[in-house]
Amino acid sequence: MSNKKIKVAICGYGNLGKGVEKAIARNDDMELVGIITRRPAVISKQTSARVVSEDEAETLANDADVLIMCGGSATDLPVQVPKFARRFNTVDSFDTHKKIPEYLKAVGESAKAGGKLAICSNGWDPGLFSVIRSIIAAIFPEAAVSKIIYTFWGKGVSQGHSDAIRRIDGVKDARQYTIPIQEAVDRVRNGENPELTAGEKHTRLCYVVAEDGADQEEIKRQIVTMPNYFADYDTTVEFISEEELRANHRGLPHGGLVIATVETSPGVKQTIEFKLSLDSNPEFTGSVLTAYARAAYRMNQQGMTGAITPLHVPPIMLDPREEKDVIADLL
Amino acid sequence: MSNKKIKVAICGYGNLGKGVEKAIARNDDMELVGIITRRPAVISKQTSARVVSEDEAETLANDADVLIMCGGSATDLPVQVPKFARRFNTVDSFDTHKKIPEYLKAVGESAKAGGKLAICSNGWDPGLFSVIRSIIAAIFPEAAVSKIIYTFWGKGVSQGHSDAIRRIDGVKDARQYTIPIQEAVDRVRNGENPELTAGEKHTRLCYVVAEDGADQEEIKRQIVTMPNYFADYDTTVEFISEEELRANHRGLPHGGLVIATVETSPGVKQTIEFKLSLDSNPEFTGSVLTAYARAAYRMNQQGMTGAITPLHVPPIMLDPREEKDVIADLL
Repeated sequence: MSNKKIKVAICGYGNLGKGVEKAIARNDDMELVGIITRRPAVISKQTSARVVSEDEAETLANDADVLIMCGGSATDLPVQVPKFARRFNTVDSFDTHKKIPEYLKAVGESAKAGGKLAICSNGWDPGLFSVIRSIIAAIFPEAAVSKIIYTFWGKGVSQGHSDAIRRIDGVKDARQYTIPIQEAVDRVRNGENPELTAGEKHTRLCYVVAEDGADQEEIKRQIVTMPNYFADYDTTVEFISEEELRANHRGLPHGGLVIATVETSPGVKQTIEFKLSLDSNPEFTGSVLTAYARAAYRMNQQGMTGAITPLHVPPIMLDPREEKDVIADLL
Repeated sequence: MSNKKIKVAICGYGNLGKGVEKAIARNDDMELVGIITRRPAVISKQTSARVVSEDEAETLANDADVLIMCGGSATDLPVQVPKFARRFNTVDSFDTHKKIPEYLKAVGESAKAGGKLAICSNGWDPGLFSVIRSIIAAIFPEAAVSKIIYTFWGKGVSQGHSDAIRRIDGVKDARQYTIPIQEAVDRVRNGENPELTAGEKHTRLCYVVAEDGADQEEIKRQIVTMPNYFADYDTTVEFISEEELRANHRGLPHGGLVIATVETSPGVKQTIEFKLSLDSNPEFTGSVLTAYARAAYRMNQQGMTGAITPLHVPPIMLDPREEKDVIADLL
């Protein structure tokens, strides 16, 4: 909407931060002005961007139009975002579902006090999938009431489940894939609207590298009986070599499907599906956060402050092009 | 967001108007307060709603929070919406792509003058598909630049193409299905990003009821050589009986797919797909218009006036539930 580039900073330089850095490079209307990290000495060797410690973050506040928060939901974001939202427009991917309302409250108070805007819980789930579910719930209010808007995840690597396996004695490394059960997807598409437990929607496939001499049967037993993570699922465990893990399971692919089938009249079925197939979860999530960073800057320029979610963002705010060009191209 | 029901009126009572009437009945927060039609004597026999002529529309203005315009884009909407947008919040499905900018201008001037809000070009294409394309264009700016956000339509009935066949001498009735070419879809999903003409994306299947004694070969020749409509496509013509048309091709199913595959790094493919499979195009489009009618009313209540598009609507405005419940359920 103007020729000035949007100045973007990144907080956190793990997989997601690196994905955001790549996304900024693909957006002609943006430039990276700095990276905030707890490990400036290490990180400054990995990027050509300006790197500052968390203590020096304040020095970026006047340079950056928006700060993309790339830490984790467990311990980083609940501390960092309320702190930084007072001085920066922020975008984050906070995904601890039950804590989102209190998180929005804490971030919102800080952002309001500083005259800034924070867009919380971006990415694809929560994020794009939330947007799609909200559109479906609006078109088919009965689907929201009856809980027949279904989300399937995968096929993809769940980092939380992979970490859980790695904590078992005798496990050197592991990669866990979440796989949607095609028959369950087909039943939803067909309008059966079945009641499905988590274990009836997904299977879990685990590739495990065991330490030399470890008891593989015992590792397998501990995995498949692990409460919450695996016990309720059809779980397969395969032991592979470290070389094979490195060769075939290095990436972080993921994806998922939001789907609903509703009858608008008896026998008249209407199906909406939104599907992501991602070779790299962090590069995709980084691309989504970057698009919402543009919206955070623009909407704050228009006077909006506080904490909002992707559900509060008009799609036109995301597109880098001028409004008249977007309308001519997309409508 | 409040306990008062949103009072909705409908202008036009063809297939789409009837679809909207059904949708309003499925939305607990809405009530139908009247139908505006050119044929009040006929229409009042088809519905229990209050029916008024276009001349009496003004009498509905104080009763209705929003008016859903259900006429056609060719001749109805360009006349009716600029007229009614001064007195009503409106929602329409204007879809003459090239004329949308001038249409927005005309409607916007009228709505602004009356302190009302018009949401133009709703439905699924333009409409939901525009929203999805804009999200894809924002996440993958290179996809918008390279024109690799693909839209496929069908399998479904194209009413414009069916009408074009019906105008041929010797044709009693006809139904035309637009069918996406699966191989083309697969190439896009696979990331080949091919250049495809309209005829390389879709085939056309025509069921024709000929008059007794009509020259079927001549009808077929006129169909497959018809410029714009059929000449550039692989077109199949099948002659069937009137009974078969009535038995098997009575409905108005449709659907479509928006899809893009982009590399965020060399070899790292990310695919986004949004798919609709609709047993009834008018009932689905009516459901979408009804959801956007809620947004038109709410956004006008917040002080917004003029003409906007679905791209300007935050998804949260569409959902009938309270904001905190939407966030708890969908984020």
